[in-house]
Amino acid sequence: FFNDTATTEIYTILFVGSVKMCIRDRCGKCRALTEFDICSICQSEKRSESQICVVENLQDLYAIEQGGSFRGRYFVLYGHLSPIDGISADDLGIDLLIDQLSDGEVQEIIIATNLTVEGQATAYFIAEKARSFDITVSRIAHGVPVGGELEYLDGNTLNLAIETRQGF
Amino acid sequence: FFNDTATTEIYTILFVGSVKMCIRDRCGKCRALTEFDICSICQSEKRSESQICVVENLQDLYAIEQGGSFRGRYFVLYGHLSPIDGISADDLGIDLLIDQLSDGEVQEIIIATNLTVEGQATAYFIAEKARSFDITVSRIAHGVPVGGELEYLDGNTLNLAIETRQGF
Repeated sequence: FFNDTATTEIYTILFVGSVKMCIRDRCGKCRALTEFDICSICQSEKRSESQICVVENLQDLYAIEQGGSFRGRYFVLYGHLSPIDGISADDLGIDLLIDQLSDGEVQEIIIATNLTVEGQATAYFIAEKARSFDITVSRIAHGVPVGGELEYLDGNTLNLAIETRQGF
Repeated sequence: FFNDTATTEIYTILFVGSVKMCIRDRCGKCRALTEFDICSICQSEKRSESQICVVENLQDLYAIEQGGSFRGRYFVLYGHLSPIDGISADDLGIDLLIDQLSDGEVQEIIIATNLTVEGQATAYFIAEKARSFDITVSRIAHGVPVGGELEYLDGNTLNLAIETRQGF
């Protein structure tokens, strides 16, 4: 938007620099990106302290927020357990999550990792850790998407949807 | 595949005619298309008589068959209840379905209609009819598809997946 290339470059550098200064670090509670010590979701008094939804990525957090029905807090792993890539529980900040379970305020942990082998392994690992705190551990529902027609769905999802059918 | 256009036309007419003769009617039990009175799935001794999966369309039946895990029988509605379009329970053959429930062999009816307003209304209607026969009525699971990443899913599916979360 400037004719002078050098001026554009200087402004770009200043802009990126200021953004980097704003986003200081990850939130001390949920590990989402924030410009403060604790992010706006964790600080909000409108959010319940009793539920934590564990997601693999920031994009998953934003997708659930977009849905607008979940009123608890989050915890962002930034990945999933993957020994072959050298990603361990420490890299996912699971210790920070477990610390928050011990204070007694959290009553339920909702695991929303993806239904892939690694996502499922991560879910089991977290569930195992959480069980020692007498906390309800739940998993988001898997099956046919809302409005989705069966004929366009993959066989694995259909098999799972029939296997995990529920009373009506 | 013939050089002579008239010959090609004659063969096409003969071919379509023979296909139409083969596919005589709908199966007398499940309403799927068949060349016999009863279709191959309903005739098969490998399929359980105790479960009936109710689907909206033939394509849904083929999709579930492709999945390969369901070993019961089907019932094809060819649509859903829609008073505004003049589609009633008679058009969907629900009487034929109810007749089959009364012989005592069917123990579970799995409703796999789509999660649309009409599909859901149809599911409720069938469930209500089936309950008088002391039969388990279940609904296929809805939520996040297998391998699906949350960030690409619509808000409604995510809300439902969190609301209908299950113990882990």
